[in-house]
Amino acid sequence: MSNPKKALRQAAGQQAAYLQEYQEYLRIPSVSTLSEHKADIERCAEWVAAQMRGMGLINVQILPTAGHPVVFGEWLQAADKPTVLMYGHYDVQPVDPLNEWHSGPFEPSIRGDYLYARGASDMKGQGHAFLKALEALLQNGELGVNVKVFFEGEEEIGSPSLPTFIAEHKELLKSDVVLNCDSGIMGINQPSMVYGLRGLAYFELWVHTASQDLHSGTFGGSIYNPAQALADLIAGMHDKKGRITLPGFYEKVRKLSGKERRQLAKLPYDEPTWLGITGAPGLHGEKGFSTVERVGARPTLEVNGLLSGFTGEGSKTVLPAKAMAKLSMRLIPDQDPDEVEQQLRQYLAANAPSTIRWELKALAGSKGALTPTDTIWMKAAGKALKQTFDVKPVFELGGGSVPIVIMLKELLGVDSVMLGFGMRDDNIHGPNEHQHLPTYFKGIETYIRFLANLD
Amino acid sequence: MSNPKKALRQAAGQQAAYLQEYQEYLRIPSVSTLSEHKADIERCAEWVAAQMRGMGLINVQILPTAGHPVVFGEWLQAADKPTVLMYGHYDVQPVDPLNEWHSGPFEPSIRGDYLYARGASDMKGQGHAFLKALEALLQNGELGVNVKVFFEGEEEIGSPSLPTFIAEHKELLKSDVVLNCDSGIMGINQPSMVYGLRGLAYFELWVHTASQDLHSGTFGGSIYNPAQALADLIAGMHDKKGRITLPGFYEKVRKLSGKERRQLAKLPYDEPTWLGITGAPGLHGEKGFSTVERVGARPTLEVNGLLSGFTGEGSKTVLPAKAMAKLSMRLIPDQDPDEVEQQLRQYLAANAPSTIRWELKALAGSKGALTPTDTIWMKAAGKALKQTFDVKPVFELGGGSVPIVIMLKELLGVDSVMLGFGMRDDNIHGPNEHQHLPTYFKGIETYIRFLANLD
Repeated sequence: MSNPKKALRQAAGQQAAYLQEYQEYLRIPSVSTLSEHKADIERCAEWVAAQMRGMGLINVQILPTAGHPVVFGEWLQAADKPTVLMYGHYDVQPVDPLNEWHSGPFEPSIRGDYLYARGASDMKGQGHAFLKALEALLQNGELGVNVKVFFEGEEEIGSPSLPTFIAEHKELLKSDVVLNCDSGIMGINQPSMVYGLRGLAYFELWVHTASQDLHSGTFGGSIYNPAQALADLIAGMHDKKGRITLPGFYEKVRKLSGKERRQLAKLPYDEPTWLGITGAPGLHGEKGFSTVERVGARPTLEVNGLLSGFTGEGSKTVLPAKAMAKLSMRLIPDQDPDEVEQQLRQYLAANAPSTIRWELKALAGSKGALTPTDTIWMKAAGKALKQTFDVKPVFELGGGSVPIVIMLKELLGVDSVMLGFGMRDDNIHGPNEHQHLPTYFKGIETYIRFLANLD
Repeated sequence: MSNPKKALRQAAGQQAAYLQEYQEYLRIPSVSTLSEHKADIERCAEWVAAQMRGMGLINVQILPTAGHPVVFGEWLQAADKPTVLMYGHYDVQPVDPLNEWHSGPFEPSIRGDYLYARGASDMKGQGHAFLKALEALLQNGELGVNVKVFFEGEEEIGSPSLPTFIAEHKELLKSDVVLNCDSGIMGINQPSMVYGLRGLAYFELWVHTASQDLHSGTFGGSIYNPAQALADLIAGMHDKKGRITLPGFYEKVRKLSGKERRQLAKLPYDEPTWLGITGAPGLHGEKGFSTVERVGARPTLEVNGLLSGFTGEGSKTVLPAKAMAKLSMRLIPDQDPDEVEQQLRQYLAANAPSTIRWELKALAGSKGALTPTDTIWMKAAGKALKQTFDVKPVFELGGGSVPIVIMLKELLGVDSVMLGFGMRDDNIHGPNEHQHLPTYFKGIETYIRFLANLD
């Protein structure tokens, strides 16, 4: 353990410059799911590579994958010291509904303590904070561990190319621990560390009936309306207790222990705050579980999108030919996304009548993960948070999915430390995504201390 | 009854010219539901007025309403003879899904015996056929009854301005019978006459939960997903027998008599043909009723559109803030659209949980209608069909809604004769709408004979 005084001083003095650079990064619309942004994705990878070269990392490379490229760099001059593999992603979510943004999603805007832009929190802010921490340590000769830095460009679409890429680059990525910066804390004054993440299984479900749109007066009532059939199928996916009805869905779900439930119950959480953040008129979910458990420790099935027939202004008396839903499940260890796909297919086969045709496309899948909380890595991270925030961090379960955590565990045998500085109300994936700037600066400080705590 | 020899000869000789003019009419994109087409609607009204002036109608006027204008013209020189009020509409449905059209919806295309364009069948073809029939009679001095011609521009949005307009123009519209040309026949070689029409109640239903789109991993499972809530509400609107569950929905539905059911059972209809027209894998509907009954004699509830969350390419793990459905009911005498709105509101109030907010907008409403089949008007129409097609016409129930029929009955006290030349498989309201051209020409002939049969 060393005291990175000079690096911390440098970070404190460079805030205005960091902020300029952070905004430059946010201006690149690196939306991974839309093919029209392919050139932006490549520009963004170049931007990250230039950062790595600028701070003196060696072996900086933009490595092709079957999809968007990986950016890699390393510094391995701390003999006999551990090697930390930092993971991040430079891609972002789409921006719609665009008309609900108060400033352009790719025109960063600072209002009060917050910076608004797509990716400000998820996770260009955190990725940039780590890069600045590493730069400050390197420039002041205070880096005492080996570091590999690894940014992917497909996290927001479920990292489809990553398993192959990792399997083919095991030596390059070899390390003692992963520092995953794609994470968050509970609140401005409540640092926390995520020890469990949910997996994801994402699908597009189509229901077809007629060969084309028909007149609802002439044909309505004689064939199954596909939008109604889709609604019937979706409605049947939950029972009255809010449990998911796919056959065998809960079989592999790891049960919460009494101890875990007691710990989760202690988390600083209250219903009015949750309602305030979401704006929802009430809470709703699986019976028998608290909200903290529902969003972190239990699987869910959500409708992410619906489309059918006429959706424009006014009335059109059409009997649609087809209807589509985007559906995704958040998975709990030890659920498997491929098995969940089979369960969904079984459900559809059993419940879809012969008067419709259905088609299911799997768009993304990853398993959930739990990481041990008592390792030297977790302790170093916890200590860094305590040093920076002057508050003891708590452990929490993350509701989101970070497929890379399980992938790196399975393919490289390495555990991940989740250490990031987003917050629940940052509107990630929604309009007006934002990052609390004082927390972003504390993030830089925490990353400096985390690396220093390991040497 | 007169023999309109010269008019029939003129119609037979002018087919090429009629076809040119018919296509000119179709090129005007008079979509009533979209405000961007307001100028096209006005251009279309002018086009119809010019037709009326050209054939020698008098008192031709474009009359303003609260919405789109009415076009009116008359010829009243047959003393002591009845007055026929011809009703038509010059507006058309929207064209989406545009990418499913094989030729532009407003670029009429003749392929084989069919003319493809939005409005070709519903109902610019029939409106034009009537205008040509009237022109042929007038130009040859063979018109022996009084005729008033009345085209509205809001039929496809439920004729919202018409009740007020009719109430304010009772004298102008005074007549002995209405000839409603917005109708069809059963098949190329099977003329038919519609004696019952369904009413319509059209709604837009919104479900809101969060104040904005959220991350489905962070918040999924803790509040009600509005797309799921909407699916649950829609699914509950039908029971397992395909009956509509809104409270009191069937109370006023007029029961089918045994005689009516026997008559309907005789209609030339078969399941393979129906499946062929629709392309659906099977029939589906209210248990205990035949397809003919389901589409004409029973009320229905259809989903006309669905929209929520992310519907683009790929996956976006969003928990949507809101979800929307376009819903419409086809009504049977004596259901009332205002009462149906109250029934829907009661259903929603009883079934929507307090964890969502819902909002219902009524977009259109009209009652259903049954007209007597033994009047001199129906007999004149039946005879004209028999003379032209050389096949005895059958009576059928129309599944669609023609609000004007009940409106004219209530406001002017006049019955309507439905006489039109569309067919079930014309794809009205869908892509590749088309009109069978030999039937369009027979339509002109039938209208000539219908008017001649009345003098």
